[in-house]
Amino acid sequence: MADLTLTTYDWVPPPPRGYVRDLRVRWALEEAALPYRVVSTPFNDRGPAHLAHQPFGQVPWLTDGDISIFESGAILLHLGQRNPELMPSDPRGRSEAAEWVFAALNSVEMASLPWTMSKFMKHPTDTAAWKFVDDFLKLRLKHLEPVLAAREWLAGSFSVADILMADVLRVVDGFDGLADSLACRAYVARATSRPAFAKAHADQMAHFAAADPARGM
Amino acid sequence: MADLTLTTYDWVPPPPRGYVRDLRVRWALEEAALPYRVVSTPFNDRGPAHLAHQPFGQVPWLTDGDISIFESGAILLHLGQRNPELMPSDPRGRSEAAEWVFAALNSVEMASLPWTMSKFMKHPTDTAAWKFVDDFLKLRLKHLEPVLAAREWLAGSFSVADILMADVLRVVDGFDGLADSLACRAYVARATSRPAFAKAHADQMAHFAAADPARGM
Repeated sequence: MADLTLTTYDWVPPPPRGYVRDLRVRWALEEAALPYRVVSTPFNDRGPAHLAHQPFGQVPWLTDGDISIFESGAILLHLGQRNPELMPSDPRGRSEAAEWVFAALNSVEMASLPWTMSKFMKHPTDTAAWKFVDDFLKLRLKHLEPVLAAREWLAGSFSVADILMADVLRVVDGFDGLADSLACRAYVARATSRPAFAKAHADQMAHFAAADPARGM
Repeated sequence: MADLTLTTYDWVPPPPRGYVRDLRVRWALEEAALPYRVVSTPFNDRGPAHLAHQPFGQVPWLTDGDISIFESGAILLHLGQRNPELMPSDPRGRSEAAEWVFAALNSVEMASLPWTMSKFMKHPTDTAAWKFVDDFLKLRLKHLEPVLAAREWLAGSFSVADILMADVLRVVDGFDGLADSLACRAYVARATSRPAFAKAHADQMAHFAAADPARGM
């Protein structure tokens, strides 16, 4: 792979730092020891040049030679299919990793995002809407718990599926949502203790902090 | 591809009929004119045999020879990578289809599912929680609208990305959520007018209806 360039915002306010999704891509690139550049797109002005790469005005996107890819799941699958450090290369292992990539995002994050956003925005918890959101996440965690109790990583060896699942779960853990899911919590600790996560996290924090002085922060 | 078997529930109550996610897989299989069998797993009793194929107790899953895959996104990507009727076969077209598969599920359905579930469950709409959910979906539709106004299908030609995006949007349309998104609405009409969708939809309705008499319905 040649000429990998990861684009993220030039700056974000402090609360989401450490959770912006370029972290998932940084983590994968660090795991595979791939050389890459990080470039910035304005957080405040998301114009046509931004939308041409990411039509929803979000980040990240990755360019790999002349191909530009958005969606962290699509980027990680792209990297996984080209790097055996990020995904098994046999058909069954590859299929297993791919289904867990989707499960992390569509079975778990689909339930965790409304939950973490409600927590973040301090929505009232005495409502039917909150009960639905809370029950939905608990149901998913109940099913995930025995899976993670029985294996170290989702698809045989560490893969991009683990980067996504751990990144989804660590936000829940940050709001103490894994208190009854000890295998999930241990899995988050196991994944985030990897040097590639620490490097990716520190690099994201430094990237956004570097833009603070120009904003008078 | 040999010996494709799609598993769905033996029965579901009437409200979700026509929306159970085996429809996405049926639709793809019909588009590619692939032979397949449909088998049932009990809706009421989701035991170890079910969880061995789908750890969250959901449907569908697909077996392709000796590989078993869950998550509708993973199944459609698997089928797309093996059938040119379902995905472009050049690297750029394939990458584009894959990113739109993720975008349908993670940028759009991530916002539409809380919205449609709130509608379905008739949660009150005078709350901060509802405003957040409604604004989130509207923001995504605002970005999707110019994309769908400018192209017939998401990735050059019709692909599995369109099956997923159209299936996600038609639920929103069913609750009249596309009234201000005319290109999105036209796209749903265009996609669901395809014969493969009609066949998939009719087959799902017939599959669940066939189990009604045994339940005294």
